[in-house]
Amino acid sequence: MDRDAVIEILEGYRSGSVSQAQALEKLTCLPFEDLDDIKIDHHRALRQGFPEVVFCPGKATEQIVRAMSELARISPNVLASRATAEVFAAVKAVLPDVVYNERARLVILEREPLPKDPDRFILVMTAGTGDVPVAEEAAATAEVMGNRVERVFDVGVAGIHRLLAHTPLMRQANVIVVAAGMEGALASVVGGMVNKPVIAVPTSIGYGANFQGLSALLAMLNSCAAGVGVVNIDNGFGAGRLAAIINRLR
Amino acid sequence: MDRDAVIEILEGYRSGSVSQAQALEKLTCLPFEDLDDIKIDHHRALRQGFPEVVFCPGKATEQIVRAMSELARISPNVLASRATAEVFAAVKAVLPDVVYNERARLVILEREPLPKDPDRFILVMTAGTGDVPVAEEAAATAEVMGNRVERVFDVGVAGIHRLLAHTPLMRQANVIVVAAGMEGALASVVGGMVNKPVIAVPTSIGYGANFQGLSALLAMLNSCAAGVGVVNIDNGFGAGRLAAIINRLR
Amino acid sequence: MDRDAVIEILEGYRSGSVSQAQALEKLTCLPFEDLDDIKIDHHRALRQGFPEVVFCPGKATEQIVRAMSELARISPNVLASRATAEVFAAVKAVLPDVVYNERARLVILEREPLPKDPDRFILVMTAGTGDVPVAEEAAATAEVMGNRVERVFDVGVAGIHRLLAHTPLMRQANVIVVAAGMEGALASVVGGMVNKPVIAVPTSIGYGANFQGLSALLAMLNSCAAGVGVVNIDNGFGAGRLAAIINRLR
Amino acid sequence: MDRDAVIEILEGYRSGSVSQAQALEKLTCLPFEDLDDIKIDHHRALRQGFPEVVFCPGKATEQIVRAMSELARISPNVLASRATAEVFAAVKAVLPDVVYNERARLVILEREPLPKDPDRFILVMTAGTGDVPVAEEAAATAEVMGNRVERVFDVGVAGIHRLLAHTPLMRQANVIVVAAGMEGALASVVGGMVNKPVIAVPTSIGYGANFQGLSALLAMLNSCAAGVGVVNIDNGFGAGRLAAIINRLR
Amino acid sequence: MDRDAVIEILEGYRSGSVSQAQALEKLTCLPFEDLDDIKIDHHRALRQGFPEVVFCPGKATEQIVRAMSELARISPNVLASRATAEVFAAVKAVLPDVVYNERARLVILEREPLPKDPDRFILVMTAGTGDVPVAEEAAATAEVMGNRVERVFDVGVAGIHRLLAHTPLMRQANVIVVAAGMEGALASVVGGMVNKPVIAVPTSIGYGANFQGLSALLAMLNSCAAGVGVVNIDNGFGAGRLAAIINRLR
Amino acid sequence: MDRDAVIEILEGYRSGSVSQAQALEKLTCLPFEDLDDIKIDHHRALRQGFPEVVFCPGKATEQIVRAMSELARISPNVLASRATAEVFAAVKAVLPDVVYNERARLVILEREPLPKDPDRFILVMTAGTGDVPVAEEAAATAEVMGNRVERVFDVGVAGIHRLLAHTPLMRQANVIVVAAGMEGALASVVGGMVNKPVIAVPTSIGYGANFQGLSALLAMLNSCAAGVGVVNIDNGFGAGRLAAIINRLR
Amino acid sequence: MDRDAVIEILEGYRSGSVSQAQALEKLTCLPFEDLDDIKIDHHRALRQGFPEVVFCPGKATEQIVRAMSELARISPNVLASRATAEVFAAVKAVLPDVVYNERARLVILEREPLPKDPDRFILVMTAGTGDVPVAEEAAATAEVMGNRVERVFDVGVAGIHRLLAHTPLMRQANVIVVAAGMEGALASVVGGMVNKPVIAVPTSIGYGANFQGLSALLAMLNSCAAGVGVVNIDNGFGAGRLAAIINRLR
Amino acid sequence: MDRDAVIEILEGYRSGSVSQAQALEKLTCLPFEDLDDIKIDHHRALRQGFPEVVFCPGKATEQIVRAMSELARISPNVLASRATAEVFAAVKAVLPDVVYNERARLVILEREPLPKDPDRFILVMTAGTGDVPVAEEAAATAEVMGNRVERVFDVGVAGIHRLLAHTPLMRQANVIVVAAGMEGALASVVGGMVNKPVIAVPTSIGYGANFQGLSALLAMLNSCAAGVGVVNIDNGFGAGRLAAIINRLR
Repeated sequence: MDRDAVIEILEGYRSGSVSQAQALEKLTCLPFEDLDDIKIDHHRALRQGFPEVVFCPGKATEQIVRAMSELARISPNVLASRATAEVFAAVKAVLPDVVYNERARLVILEREPLPKDPDRFILVMTAGTGDVPVAEEAAATAEVMGNRVERVFDVGVAGIHRLLAHTPLMRQANVIVVAAGMEGALASVVGGMVNKPVIAVPTSIGYGANFQGLSALLAMLNSCAAGVGVVNIDNGFGAGRLAAIINRLR
Repeated sequence: MDRDAVIEILEGYRSGSVSQAQALEKLTCLPFEDLDDIKIDHHRALRQGFPEVVFCPGKATEQIVRAMSELARISPNVLASRATAEVFAAVKAVLPDVVYNERARLVILEREPLPKDPDRFILVMTAGTGDVPVAEEAAATAEVMGNRVERVFDVGVAGIHRLLAHTPLMRQANVIVVAAGMEGALASVVGGMVNKPVIAVPTSIGYGANFQGLSALLAMLNSCAAGVGVVNIDNGFGAGRLAAIINRLR
Repeated sequence: MDRDAVIEILEGYRSGSVSQAQALEKLTCLPFEDLDDIKIDHHRALRQGFPEVVFCPGKATEQIVRAMSELARISPNVLASRATAEVFAAVKAVLPDVVYNERARLVILEREPLPKDPDRFILVMTAGTGDVPVAEEAAATAEVMGNRVERVFDVGVAGIHRLLAHTPLMRQANVIVVAAGMEGALASVVGGMVNKPVIAVPTSIGYGANFQGLSALLAMLNSCAAGVGVVNIDNGFGAGRLAAIINRLR
Repeated sequence: MDRDAVIEILEGYRSGSVSQAQALEKLTCLPFEDLDDIKIDHHRALRQGFPEVVFCPGKATEQIVRAMSELARISPNVLASRATAEVFAAVKAVLPDVVYNERARLVILEREPLPKDPDRFILVMTAGTGDVPVAEEAAATAEVMGNRVERVFDVGVAGIHRLLAHTPLMRQANVIVVAAGMEGALASVVGGMVNKPVIAVPTSIGYGANFQGLSALLAMLNSCAAGVGVVNIDNGFGAGRLAAIINRLR
Repeated sequence: MDRDAVIEILEGYRSGSVSQAQALEKLTCLPFEDLDDIKIDHHRALRQGFPEVVFCPGKATEQIVRAMSELARISPNVLASRATAEVFAAVKAVLPDVVYNERARLVILEREPLPKDPDRFILVMTAGTGDVPVAEEAAATAEVMGNRVERVFDVGVAGIHRLLAHTPLMRQANVIVVAAGMEGALASVVGGMVNKPVIAVPTSIGYGANFQGLSALLAMLNSCAAGVGVVNIDNGFGAGRLAAIINRLR
Repeated sequence: MDRDAVIEILEGYRSGSVSQAQALEKLTCLPFEDLDDIKIDHHRALRQGFPEVVFCPGKATEQIVRAMSELARISPNVLASRATAEVFAAVKAVLPDVVYNERARLVILEREPLPKDPDRFILVMTAGTGDVPVAEEAAATAEVMGNRVERVFDVGVAGIHRLLAHTPLMRQANVIVVAAGMEGALASVVGGMVNKPVIAVPTSIGYGANFQGLSALLAMLNSCAAGVGVVNIDNGFGAGRLAAIINRLR
Repeated sequence: MDRDAVIEILEGYRSGSVSQAQALEKLTCLPFEDLDDIKIDHHRALRQGFPEVVFCPGKATEQIVRAMSELARISPNVLASRATAEVFAAVKAVLPDVVYNERARLVILEREPLPKDPDRFILVMTAGTGDVPVAEEAAATAEVMGNRVERVFDVGVAGIHRLLAHTPLMRQANVIVVAAGMEGALASVVGGMVNKPVIAVPTSIGYGANFQGLSALLAMLNSCAAGVGVVNIDNGFGAGRLAAIINRLR
Repeated sequence: MDRDAVIEILEGYRSGSVSQAQALEKLTCLPFEDLDDIKIDHHRALRQGFPEVVFCPGKATEQIVRAMSELARISPNVLASRATAEVFAAVKAVLPDVVYNERARLVILEREPLPKDPDRFILVMTAGTGDVPVAEEAAATAEVMGNRVERVFDVGVAGIHRLLAHTPLMRQANVIVVAAGMEGALASVVGGMVNKPVIAVPTSIGYGANFQGLSALLAMLNSCAAGVGVVNIDNGFGAGRLAAIINRLR
């Protein structure tokens, strides 16, 4: 659905030629912007509560800037993931309000921060220090989507007491994100300690027979603790998005 | 074990109401029953809201009966998964109230059904008819754990209109479980249509290069739609348990 | 070599119009040029309707230039795939008419464009913007081989309405090429909507458990929609070539 | 769309309350039959020229019989793939006209054979005798869908002259299906000899490092000859369906 | 087909001793027998010194009997590999002279034993007792193809002295076949001790992370000793055939 | 063969107490018994402190009986692993003293039990009840090789308190064997709690993406806790043997 | 935390020598330092006899320096593994006593060398020269943890006499570490020659079908010699740590 | 070490012409040079007819120079494989006679060329131009080891007539080496055309689902033509060495 179509519906509604019901149906159905090689899904903000997020890898910088600009025309808050410093600089040149979360590789435009419920928070945990970038991508994503986030990093199972010391916080959290590489055992241990949904993110941290995250991925999929859902290797954004959706259920 | 519990034990011990032996036992371990080769985790009902579930494969029938009996001594509702008809018969001989959901391969003891919120339901969907046993395991698990469940089966993407016809129900659901084999595309399409958590269960339905569920598993992990969490291949129980935890969050 | 050609040679030999040496050469081999480490298959233009295409990776620039020059001696239209800008420059130095399709990484010599049937076209689609280079390789290959090509990019299943909006064009196409990475679901959805051959090209776009295109490859091979043929990961050339062969069948 | 809805549209059209245009739109859009755990896609016959095919594995015999009966109510020709002799017997009890192609494991109801163009045929080839069941599934599928089919079996590359002897037939064919296990080289050799679309079906024939068809699958995907599209391992039905779609293009 | 044969046909045709039909047949194909679903490659005996060998898996017993009978019409010695006792019984019913090597699963017709050079022998070795069936398939294949064979079984590297004790025999052998499962180290150790071609056959003996022979296969392919050629997992026939070809080189 | 032995033989030969034939035999080989297809390594008892153990899979019952009998002629204690009840019966017929540990699938001849050090024990642990057969194979192997063994079964990380309750026993153990399937996290948690060698045995318990033990294997190899050595999937014997060697170091 | 410690705390609390706050802290957590994104596990030196080792990959240089400094405040000896020369320079700037073992990529602070038992040594062996960096990581790790280490490099099985020449040293060693790439056969051969624990480290040395160390890994896991424990690919540190733990058992 | 040598040493010792020390050294080890981290296997020239070849990857340049120099002290002809131009320059500085075969990445010292039998030659073939470096490594290796080598490059199966044209040369060859990437079909086709040993070298040429040579490797291992032995991916040296051993058998 192109711009002209939206305008036409709006004008028709004002003039009375389109009923409220008709306008509603048309507008909640299928608007997207056709930029030729990019189709901006403007409807996603209505359908999913947050506009389309720009995934940068494989896109030219020019395409990313074009997509961000177009989204920013409609939505106050926009996100680009896996962004390099170069991409950030190019976007900032046209959207001066964006900030760069370097550790999370996110370019964030947050002009109207969403309200956060202080009583319902997402806890983001990592097994090691090397897992922090992925965890931070999850945390920042969830925050910009309107969630309070707490962080507990470097509490892997090689020193189980470091984890046990955070039991109260784990019990208070509404949703827990666990980022872990190597053998990914933290997801199982956390999953066995709480009655909350655990979103497990395998990371590619490790070497040799970790096969770029396969070891943690398989471990998390085979967790002996129920209540664990897994996202793609190193997919901090996906974990943060899923945690945000769950945390905002009412 | 949280701080309050520790303080209570300490005070009880100082005051004499708790003996040294009792304090020791409480402080050094949480309750579980040691049946030698089985450790019944009675604490799980407190910790996770539902007692330990007996996973049957690899266990002798006698061990399963022993575990079910022990759990039934404490909990009104008990579940055994991946149970054969033989296992069911053996359990029924000692626990006459159990019923058998053959399609879901679940042995269910439900003496005090948990209350269900009629306004918040889990929608369980399948791509094909062959995925139904896995989906039914998810659905029945969620039901016995106190959730209203709706089912929509055989709506795979080869005939997308079958899926689109159920859009309103998908929008009303609180959590959606999607079971699909082959290329597992249903999870991505559903994930793109709703703003609800989607629990994706790859199934081993298919042949050849599905490699016993690997194709659907990888597809679901790589979903282009955010908001999708994945469990193990054919793990209907895990999907149902995770959906139940999410659906009962308040 | 078909029967008629053999008969012609035999008769020519008996009548004396063909010498023994000529008969021998014709009967024992088809025409090709032996450049030592490169054997130019001049017969391919006859056999397959388009001369051999130079696949650049693993070849020295000097070898590519030599092969292109030799082919251009015989054929008006010549193609080199996976060519870098350096290769293009070197070829252009000796064949000034070549052009470079940078996005598709093709070096194209098209001195006598093949006629195109305007009523029979190939539709090339992508799930995301990152899949465009592969799709463009398919599209440009099909065009130089004498086919009308239409392009619809960035219509992946995370926003299914973007795809549904193009249903009429999909119904009119004669052959559809679908390039998609991540979970590759677009091929299945398209395959279910039309009664036309779908050539699916998995791309390596994505990360983590996409395993460099394996996830999309397996998904496409396991498509629940019939009518889908798959080519190698990122093999836009192969998809374009196959689509061209099908589109030119009479 | 359920039966009542179809009736209502038809009655409305007869009475004049529904225009022809409206009825057309509604009827070509989305009819399917909801049998609870099976959704019969009656629209597929319109959309794809042949009704939905019942894939038997993972379905109960009762479900297969129900699906076949329902399809046979609307369509004269119906197919079930991967059917055992037991399934055939059960279907025959309610649909006496069905026949069983044992080698291809197909249950076929063909009450109104589709017309075949004698000038355009599909050639189905195998590398070995062990590949014949898969090839026969492709051939019989294409025949019931209205195509003339020729068969050349056991012409693998270990004795290349067996293949070369069939060059004229290969040149005359409109589409070629190649079924091969082990190293699957036949697809590449055939693809290099003709200018026709080649549908390659890897089979699981072989042992050891064939890894149940993986060797042939990878070989076919990496074919050095262009013009080869690959379907799933042992997927004779998919190859036959795709060949039929291509062969019936006009 | 070599030049001399072509010249002979050409001259015969010019002189009239060969008809056009005969010339055509000879020039367009080499001899093979077309049994419809089996093409007997009678030319192989000329081309490769031994007639085609019937590989039984995936073939119906009737097909095997037909192929054996046809081959036995032309060749005095015929072999069928991977044959069950049932297949043997069926073949023996029509070819009473066949014998069954049960351990090697070979059905052997050897009416005119080929002469063997006593000074040039093939040594067949195994790492364990479990590898013997594969080794015996190699040994019996080489024997029927006219080679003296010596056997040394169960000399794996866990007790290296068992191997070292056979050093003189290893030095005298002309070709060595090594069958080993598990870690397949025997091939490397033998390869380092001799200056003879070593044909390594990985076997599927072992369990767990041997992945049905993958561990031995990879080990043998990565042998630190040069001079090792590898055949498929459990492919005793292939090893015996290759060893026979090498041993009979002059 | 060490220097002293060589010197002794040389001196014996010079003095005439050892004949040339004897010297030759001793210098060129260590003792083993050649049963044609089985080479009994009698030297192993000297070299490794326990005679060769008979691994049953892939061996004919007759071969196992022959090997056991031969070993029993020399050694008081003999072991056969992965033995079925049928094998046990056949061995017992000729060696009436053997006993059968059914859970561990071991046939044990223990006529002169080795002395055990009560102060140094091996602790064998499992994550679940399904892992017990593998653990029992490890435990029984270590016992017959002269080690005190303690068992703690079903203490997986889904209920971490069950594990923590056994901390004192873990601290007292000299070596710990951990058998676990699914995600195999127990090895990492145990490895982080103690300063003792941990022998990790992945088991094939689980389903779907455990890929027959691969998930646990990779997890254990990638353990974030140092001090963990891994053996093959389901290889209880190997774990018990390695633990025994370590426990008996002085 | 063991019973005695708990009793001591309880008694101290009742007697007043331990405050409630102190008791709480002791009972709920073991000592660790919270540096936000790094949790220094100071308890590990007590629990495992050597402080936590800093694994450098994935950590910022600043984080490594911070962790090393913090550990050095408490422990005299500290280790960082997989450290680049840049990391070493940065650490040396704040801890001038550190040295750099370049071949092993270890940064070592050894202010109070641990005593070594000259009679019990670890033998570190490699198959090739390329495996030396991994072996050296193992050797240097074991040395700094208080063990005498002997090295024998480049004795792979392609020249078995190079290995046999070191038999006496192998017999004297207490523990043997074997680092090997390619087919990893050295571990099996060594394991068969001695009655000592063998720690096998697969290396990624090799190419092609070694799949970055997978061939050696699988070979070592499938060793036909018992007594072999395997660590991760290229994990010299893990091998050295495990060997050190075993060698220091009393 | 064979019996005669042992007898000679024994007699020498008894007669006094050999001292105890000498006898000991000879009886316990074969000659090799211990350069600490490199053990030069001087015995290999005796044992295998050509001195040890230096495999460069993973070795420091200094180590390569040291090894080459040491080998050149004893042997007139020395080879280093996978050598960079830098390595060549460093070796040339100390051994001025070395030459560099850049395409084959071999550093060759050939001071006394081995005699070649002109009647027995090795034919080295490639499927494509990209496979030439691997083929050239095989060819140059075989030449320096004393074999006549013929080369036929770029005759892959996509244009089978290019291959058929070389049938006479293939029939005359004594051994054939086939280097091919992608689907590796050339090995099967060649193997079916000749009665000579075929050494197949899979190359990593290709992309996508060739998985760095896995597709060609599996294809070659599963060759439907017998008489094919496979070496590691890209292992031209190994193929050349094996071909040389076979070609020099008498």
